Amino acid sequence: MELLARARQLESEGRSIIHMEVGEPDFPTPDPIVEAGRQALMEDHTHYTPAMGITELREAIAGHYATRFGCRVDPQQVVVTPGSSGALQLVMGVLVNPGEAVLMADPGYPCNRHFVYLAGGDPVTVPVGPATQYQLTAELVEKAWTPNTKAVMLATPSNPTGTLVSRQAMEEIHEVVKSRNGVLIIDEIYQGLVYGGEEFTAASIADDIFVINSFSKYFGMTGWRLGWMIAPREMVAAVDKLAQNIFLSPPTPSQHAALAAFTEETQQILESRREAFRARRDFLLPKLQELGFEMATEPQGAFYLYANCSSLTGDSFDFAMRLLEEEGGAITPGKDFGSNRPEQHVRFAYTTDISKLEEGVKRIARFLGRS
Amino acid sequence: MELLARARQLESEGRSIIHMEVGEPDFPTPDPIVEAGRQALMEDHTHYTPAMGITELREAIAGHYATRFGCRVDPQQVVVTPGSSGALQLVMGVLVNPGEAVLMADPGYPCNRHFVYLAGGDPVTVPVGPATQYQLTAELVEKAWTPNTKAVMLATPSNPTGTLVSRQAMEEIHEVVKSRNGVLIIDEIYQGLVYGGEEFTAASIADDIFVINSFSKYFGMTGWRLGWMIAPREMVAAVDKLAQNIFLSPPTPSQHAALAAFTEETQQILESRREAFRARRDFLLPKLQELGFEMATEPQGAFYLYANCSSLTGDSFDFAMRLLEEEGGAITPGKDFGSNRPEQHVRFAYTTDISKLEEGVKRIARFLGRS
Repeated sequence: MELLARARQLESEGRSIIHMEVGEPDFPTPDPIVEAGRQALMEDHTHYTPAMGITELREAIAGHYATRFGCRVDPQQVVVTPGSSGALQLVMGVLVNPGEAVLMADPGYPCNRHFVYLAGGDPVTVPVGPATQYQLTAELVEKAWTPNTKAVMLATPSNPTGTLVSRQAMEEIHEVVKSRNGVLIIDEIYQGLVYGGEEFTAASIADDIFVINSFSKYFGMTGWRLGWMIAPREMVAAVDKLAQNIFLSPPTPSQHAALAAFTEETQQILESRREAFRARRDFLLPKLQELGFEMATEPQGAFYLYANCSSLTGDSFDFAMRLLEEEGGAITPGKDFGSNRPEQHVRFAYTTDISKLEEGVKRIARFLGRS
Repeated sequence: MELLARARQLESEGRSIIHMEVGEPDFPTPDPIVEAGRQALMEDHTHYTPAMGITELREAIAGHYATRFGCRVDPQQVVVTPGSSGALQLVMGVLVNPGEAVLMADPGYPCNRHFVYLAGGDPVTVPVGPATQYQLTAELVEKAWTPNTKAVMLATPSNPTGTLVSRQAMEEIHEVVKSRNGVLIIDEIYQGLVYGGEEFTAASIADDIFVINSFSKYFGMTGWRLGWMIAPREMVAAVDKLAQNIFLSPPTPSQHAALAAFTEETQQILESRREAFRARRDFLLPKLQELGFEMATEPQGAFYLYANCSSLTGDSFDFAMRLLEEEGGAITPGKDFGSNRPEQHVRFAYTTDISKLEEGVKRIARFLGRS
């Protein structure tokens, strides 16, 4: 965050900054979605909606699971939320009582911990590394489980690591969690941004899993603040009640716009963007490896590379700050993602086009005295 | 809520329902705001913004205080939020520690209690009645204060009572709260919808008050999910950090649309709507009094009348349910607003036009055997 503020300041002073720190697609919202939003405004879709969202959108989301994954989802279990942030707050709000723990991987998305705190719970982070592709496993979950543990949260693809959880690994974790009477929460907000490996959804594994998703990343709708979850049937009423109390409803124009997210036309745009992200990853990954950044496994999703930089520096925060100050290259130091050897890691986001990534790599090389 | 669901069900079965229960203006969003929203979408304003909102909007809101109230507000202290619900969550999140109490009036808006619970605090409701125009006073605050009390929250105009807090009363309450090292929170989300009495803002009383506001009610932007607060200077950083963690940012198209909320053109539309609300109140109030509903004071704001119905029924919930079932008249029973003699009260919302209110009055009269 400190680094982000500094990057903005330098830029406002006229410095050229190559942004490899931004967790937001550089693409604008696809035209058909924007057009649907404009149409919705013309038709005065500006009033409150039900707290769980408009029926048409809940049905469209359920239809998306059928089309894309051959997975049957009951629209009654689809809850539209103000961003996946809203979904996470609802999940933790209905699940976690004060003193109860939620297990999650470290490194991980820092706000996840915050949603557990907000509910009065304890986020318990489990260090993960290249041996498990920076993901939790059934074994790690079993070891970390205590009588206070209420839930386990996985993210696939993961921010910051870009790695996936395989179907088998998720099934094994689900077994362990179930046997302890816990709840599994799967964050799929980067779903669709996958460049290898099997694509599946946690919704196809069991119907007692909270599945979190978002229109922000794959669908390119960050500023619209719209996400969703699939909630276990017996939890829907509690989720609805909490949503009524704390959100009233998700943004109405955004909901109507999102109806255009699942059309053939939009899907074609999104798939071509996926290919662009893949090309960026394929460009950036080997270049960074040549420069001495280590990635044990090829990250297969999201738009992040999480690199071990310990052969280049002993202090990734200082490294990132100096790279920014000296060369105008903005990357994210490990400490934003947890306390599992953060000083040895940095995150690169490929949310900018290849010509800029080329320039970024050039600047890093110069910074390292390698050019 | 039960009643709302039943009203919807009856309507879907083809029954004619007169809605005097809806807490949302029946007017659509003013055209200039809708047009600004459409323009914003065309210009791709669809990405994340800073967590506290875009600078132009924070400045426009500050300008609104200058224009309307001659009150100087620093744009740096203006925080744009996902609805006033978002603002309330942030306020309680940064202020209230587990076990600390927030005082508020009963009857009051039920979600306010929930935001205190969410922060681990105790909402402590203080019964209020016609003697204090259903508002807290300095004396009531002093009596209810305990060592655990952290903050006091007032709403002016109030939901459900439509009554105001006078400047003098607010100043006195502020003195008491300050002398106890507490914090004052003023909910002004119905500001602008005032039909008598002095118009002022809590921001003009002191700069250590949290002032909550919304684009939903006066500005007619409910579904856009946009509100704001003015935070005391030393609390802004904490609010910003929490907003970054739990919301990321308020909806971007909504923020750009709201820039058109303060223009001369929009203000004219809003002022003519205010006159329509006033006319509705002036129609409905005496008709209800004739029928035996008692309102000790003339409610001067929002779009609600909170009536004592104890001369007509001993059970306002049963009364409201039977009125709905027998005559298709939907009103809100007191129990939605607290536990201060709820069985003796009902709320009427005049969010529907006079011809419908006329029909509503006719149905109530028939229900009471008075026609």
